[in-house]
Amino acid sequence: MAGNSFGTFFKLTTFGESHGEAIGGIIEGCPAGLKLDFDAIQKEMQRRKPGQSAITTQRKEADEVIFLSGIFEGTTTGTPIGFQIKNTNQKSKDYSHNNEVYRPSHADFTYDKKYGLRDYRGGGRSSARETANWVVAGAVAKQLIREIEINAFVSSVGDVFIDKPYQELNFSKTETNAVRCPDSASAERMEAYIKQIKKAGDTVGGTITCVIKNAPIGLGEPVFDKLHARLGQAMLSINAVKGFEYGSGFCGARMKGSEHNDTFQEDGTTKTNLSGGIQGGISNGMDIYFRVAFKPVATIMQTQDTIDSSGNKAEIQGKGRHDPCVVPRAVPIVEAMAALVLADFYLINKLSKI
Amino acid sequence: MAGNSFGTFFKLTTFGESHGEAIGGIIEGCPAGLKLDFDAIQKEMQRRKPGQSAITTQRKEADEVIFLSGIFEGTTTGTPIGFQIKNTNQKSKDYSHNNEVYRPSHADFTYDKKYGLRDYRGGGRSSARETANWVVAGAVAKQLIREIEINAFVSSVGDVFIDKPYQELNFSKTETNAVRCPDSASAERMEAYIKQIKKAGDTVGGTITCVIKNAPIGLGEPVFDKLHARLGQAMLSINAVKGFEYGSGFCGARMKGSEHNDTFQEDGTTKTNLSGGIQGGISNGMDIYFRVAFKPVATIMQTQDTIDSSGNKAEIQGKGRHDPCVVPRAVPIVEAMAALVLADFYLINKLSKI
Amino acid sequence: MAGNSFGTFFKLTTFGESHGEAIGGIIEGCPAGLKLDFDAIQKEMQRRKPGQSAITTQRKEADEVIFLSGIFEGTTTGTPIGFQIKNTNQKSKDYSHNNEVYRPSHADFTYDKKYGLRDYRGGGRSSARETANWVVAGAVAKQLIREIEINAFVSSVGDVFIDKPYQELNFSKTETNAVRCPDSASAERMEAYIKQIKKAGDTVGGTITCVIKNAPIGLGEPVFDKLHARLGQAMLSINAVKGFEYGSGFCGARMKGSEHNDTFQEDGTTKTNLSGGIQGGISNGMDIYFRVAFKPVATIMQTQDTIDSSGNKAEIQGKGRHDPCVVPRAVPIVEAMAALVLADFYLINKLSKI
Amino acid sequence: MAGNSFGTFFKLTTFGESHGEAIGGIIEGCPAGLKLDFDAIQKEMQRRKPGQSAITTQRKEADEVIFLSGIFEGTTTGTPIGFQIKNTNQKSKDYSHNNEVYRPSHADFTYDKKYGLRDYRGGGRSSARETANWVVAGAVAKQLIREIEINAFVSSVGDVFIDKPYQELNFSKTETNAVRCPDSASAERMEAYIKQIKKAGDTVGGTITCVIKNAPIGLGEPVFDKLHARLGQAMLSINAVKGFEYGSGFCGARMKGSEHNDTFQEDGTTKTNLSGGIQGGISNGMDIYFRVAFKPVATIMQTQDTIDSSGNKAEIQGKGRHDPCVVPRAVPIVEAMAALVLADFYLINKLSKI
Repeated sequence: MAGNSFGTFFKLTTFGESHGEAIGGIIEGCPAGLKLDFDAIQKEMQRRKPGQSAITTQRKEADEVIFLSGIFEGTTTGTPIGFQIKNTNQKSKDYSHNNEVYRPSHADFTYDKKYGLRDYRGGGRSSARETANWVVAGAVAKQLIREIEINAFVSSVGDVFIDKPYQELNFSKTETNAVRCPDSASAERMEAYIKQIKKAGDTVGGTITCVIKNAPIGLGEPVFDKLHARLGQAMLSINAVKGFEYGSGFCGARMKGSEHNDTFQEDGTTKTNLSGGIQGGISNGMDIYFRVAFKPVATIMQTQDTIDSSGNKAEIQGKGRHDPCVVPRAVPIVEAMAALVLADFYLINKLSKI
Repeated sequence: MAGNSFGTFFKLTTFGESHGEAIGGIIEGCPAGLKLDFDAIQKEMQRRKPGQSAITTQRKEADEVIFLSGIFEGTTTGTPIGFQIKNTNQKSKDYSHNNEVYRPSHADFTYDKKYGLRDYRGGGRSSARETANWVVAGAVAKQLIREIEINAFVSSVGDVFIDKPYQELNFSKTETNAVRCPDSASAERMEAYIKQIKKAGDTVGGTITCVIKNAPIGLGEPVFDKLHARLGQAMLSINAVKGFEYGSGFCGARMKGSEHNDTFQEDGTTKTNLSGGIQGGISNGMDIYFRVAFKPVATIMQTQDTIDSSGNKAEIQGKGRHDPCVVPRAVPIVEAMAALVLADFYLINKLSKI
Repeated sequence: MAGNSFGTFFKLTTFGESHGEAIGGIIEGCPAGLKLDFDAIQKEMQRRKPGQSAITTQRKEADEVIFLSGIFEGTTTGTPIGFQIKNTNQKSKDYSHNNEVYRPSHADFTYDKKYGLRDYRGGGRSSARETANWVVAGAVAKQLIREIEINAFVSSVGDVFIDKPYQELNFSKTETNAVRCPDSASAERMEAYIKQIKKAGDTVGGTITCVIKNAPIGLGEPVFDKLHARLGQAMLSINAVKGFEYGSGFCGARMKGSEHNDTFQEDGTTKTNLSGGIQGGISNGMDIYFRVAFKPVATIMQTQDTIDSSGNKAEIQGKGRHDPCVVPRAVPIVEAMAALVLADFYLINKLSKI
Repeated sequence: MAGNSFGTFFKLTTFGESHGEAIGGIIEGCPAGLKLDFDAIQKEMQRRKPGQSAITTQRKEADEVIFLSGIFEGTTTGTPIGFQIKNTNQKSKDYSHNNEVYRPSHADFTYDKKYGLRDYRGGGRSSARETANWVVAGAVAKQLIREIEINAFVSSVGDVFIDKPYQELNFSKTETNAVRCPDSASAERMEAYIKQIKKAGDTVGGTITCVIKNAPIGLGEPVFDKLHARLGQAMLSINAVKGFEYGSGFCGARMKGSEHNDTFQEDGTTKTNLSGGIQGGISNGMDIYFRVAFKPVATIMQTQDTIDSSGNKAEIQGKGRHDPCVVPRAVPIVEAMAALVLADFYLINKLSKI
């Protein structure tokens, strides 16, 4: 009800604010008997962690996940997996100037109006710190659906786009550069652009593309839980996301049926895949791919007009350490949310027929 | 679990296939004491109905909604509102040729694989007939949140786009033409294009834009039930939808923070509204607007390669009466789904603070 | 949220009032491929139907269930099973005298206060007519878990009790008498007592015992969805139910641990079964048994003091055709609700381990 | 799905085993603006804590609750309240002998069969330690519905019963003795009996009665979420509970309608209250009361026959520190669960009518 849970059978419920003692969550529905690879989980946390390169924020977050239940001798027991991540670096004073004024395009104003009060030390519940919880759960989900490969990568930063279809990319190169773009030439241009933006005290948006391979046929449920509808909700839950498209996406809206239809081949595959691996909301065994749009980070190092909580005019200027572009850091988050969606449908689908 | 429900407090659960005796649903969570305007409900049904103009399918569907419970002397009683819509025109033989072959870019293949069988007389549960249920519930929802104005309209068909910002459009003109485009000049061009497509036995996609005015501040819940995430899920549930964006959308991904931020004015409004009326997942009182991409209808009047259920090569050709472009008919569906999202959050928000 | 759904995976959502056009529901989560025996379903409806014998109400209800979706050529398709039961005998005038006064120990007063209005033509949503929906869904559930035997029977009426342990009863005799008591001697005494009560224009309560055989080990989920907790909720949902106990029940509260513990035997069974087949909320393979207490029907043929909706003193006297004892008719309802609980856990349990 | 959540709007989700590092939970749906009394919360924890008197286990549990989120400067923020309770006294070796054998009437056998493995260091997820989480959430719930008084007390131990109606009891005396019985004479007899049982290395069951005063009219939802059905589910979730009855309960099943009906008085109250304050599943403003049956604790200090996990005959004897009677300690747990039910319905009821 209150929006803290994601999933129906394989389900994550989270708590936590950027400036409390810890954030954390509860993973339900993970079957018993899954031998967990904790290094793989921590590695995902590492990927999401701020301060990994010159183009991201230098804020340090330990991001060490502590599992509290649901695991015995390294194996899941079928009971809920409780976990927490301590907020080790909660410098409240850095943010005390936020008390008086509403940061433009942040959630300060809406939270204040909705709840009548808010923890003004930071983004509170709307902080991207929350996504660390998702990466934990997503890393567990990935191990449950080990045969499915989820590859997210940065496909554009500002106006710098990869100019190749995803089929020509080598996903093993995604982690080899700071922007997480598998095309080296594009990566260099993106990185240069972000540095220039940073220098200007500004920020920039971008897109992430995600390609899912080896998903079995049958994932997704009719009507309101279509695979792409749940993927869409998942992606739109990520901070700063403004749009989602899968398969042909917005381009498909400009096409004719005779161009767009994916005709079947004798082996059950389709000749083209403008459907993006999903037909009628259900995976058809082809690659699932989608694209997610991120707006530029709202916190900029420039002076902006705003108001304070009493409605008086005020000015605000970002201080401290902020990301000029969050898109590279969002890559593991996109993968984690995709994994949560897939793991949930993977389990549910086992009950589709007698 | 099985994807037949939408909403948490104000909740619709549906059943029905295109070729059964009736489709229908149950609306839960509508407070007691709402005096219903049944004409307004039937009018929405009329808007969704096929066969309304030369550019849509000529298939006749009565689409008369019969309310079975939850209403006493015209007023809601607080108990579930059961309703049904009879399938009066279920000509099964028209579709019998579908038994053997999988229609490209339809759900035949995926349903067969997922469930091991399917009602091959039509689209079954994946049929757009289902959306009639949504329009019923959406029409009730609209009456619950009467002060909120929801205006959807066709903003593009193929490559024909409205070339004005929505602020320059007169929404009262949307229903004055067959394509449901409030800009007359664009409407004419769209209509001409659809006719040409129809002649070729082809189909074409398009986009719908929806502008919501007068939404109170505070709608939407943090983290996974962000207002735009639920709107996205709602829109992506609609047949043929391939993408969703709100506010600046995919364009926002190309912008800088200094361009994108919506600075506050003394009255609490923002100077610009690239946020699309939603900040941190919660409505801020500005116009909420979003755009939805529809692929071209998969059923075309041309011969296509496919396979039959045994995996043998086959050919298929659309017969009967089909839409060259569903986008105009989807306008009331977009509005209905938006109304469901808003009504749900409207009620939930009443419990946000003591 | 609004209390119209039961179950998590195998889930029933219902609508309907005693005096609307129809009642009905939606069954979700039934896997595809279940060949349904419709005669068996209608037979269960027949068991619940009023007017079956001299000791029950003579009111006629057709209770014919019409399936509207989710079934193709007699087999479930995995999509929601919509159904309805028409209210053919809705004589509203019989009940018009209820408008003015609140019937003692009925829901008239509480519904009026909660919702501000109510359909005063009958019990509205609180009518036992609703249970016809449950019997439909329960009958489908029974077919899904065909190997599990669910045997409910009347174990007491007023002070007339069966004086044997259930192990000595022959459940095939339950349907051979009007009170649905498998012990002929007790049945006769119960029947005689009910006739005497009826003559006095009074009503009487009783208990139903339910014995479930062949339930697999592992049904039920830890903590809040314990098998007995869900069975308890299910039974307490039935009109007129005042209590639920399983295994040793209230007697167990008077015992010592050394008497109460069920020690294990080499084959994994237990020597005694005071646990009632459930340990830690999970079935252990032994017989599951529980007992349900029903109060006497509130509508009596005697004059009672009450008030009208304005708070003025008034008198009320039951008219028309009412049951002196509902307990026999509740037997198939108890079985139906038990079947819903078991079918749900049966499916969920398939996902307990990898 | 997996049974770790309770409630729909005001909702608790928990995790944790007896022998992990910590247990904890997430409280969702608590409105913003509730000033919390932390001393009152800790006091409830103290009431549940083992080792409080000579008749309870001497095991020490710190049971200090640490709130991690959802509270700012002592007031709820509307976001989820995460909390944890550390397991400070986890002496795993005490329990290592449980590895080989199944404890009779414990959940060892069923967990092993359901999940294929279990944390054999203790009761795992089935441990009563879990109820500490409930007491935290219940204590918060109590503060949300401050005007409602919830009074639970021990009404019997073995065959020692309070022989007075609850109306003659002074609830302020409940906490003045070790058995939590407000009738001093009965309390003494109960205490003496428990000491005798303890000496014999045995255990004994009992009942708890709960009386709820000042509940507003309108709590509870029709059909499947009847107030008493949710209370029943709540109570049956508590470890060792075998039965639940409200109002007249099982006695009501022996009565006639003319004796049982609660006739209305001019002020809207009823002359009698055999309904137990609930009619049609909705509170009517009268006292709500119910009774809960607890079996004797399964761990006894006597030798019992059992089997090991390979199916070989074995013997087991309880060691360490165990309760001869858990009923007194369950009093705050009953209250906590009742508070969770009431708080949930209290919020939901605010949306019953326009």
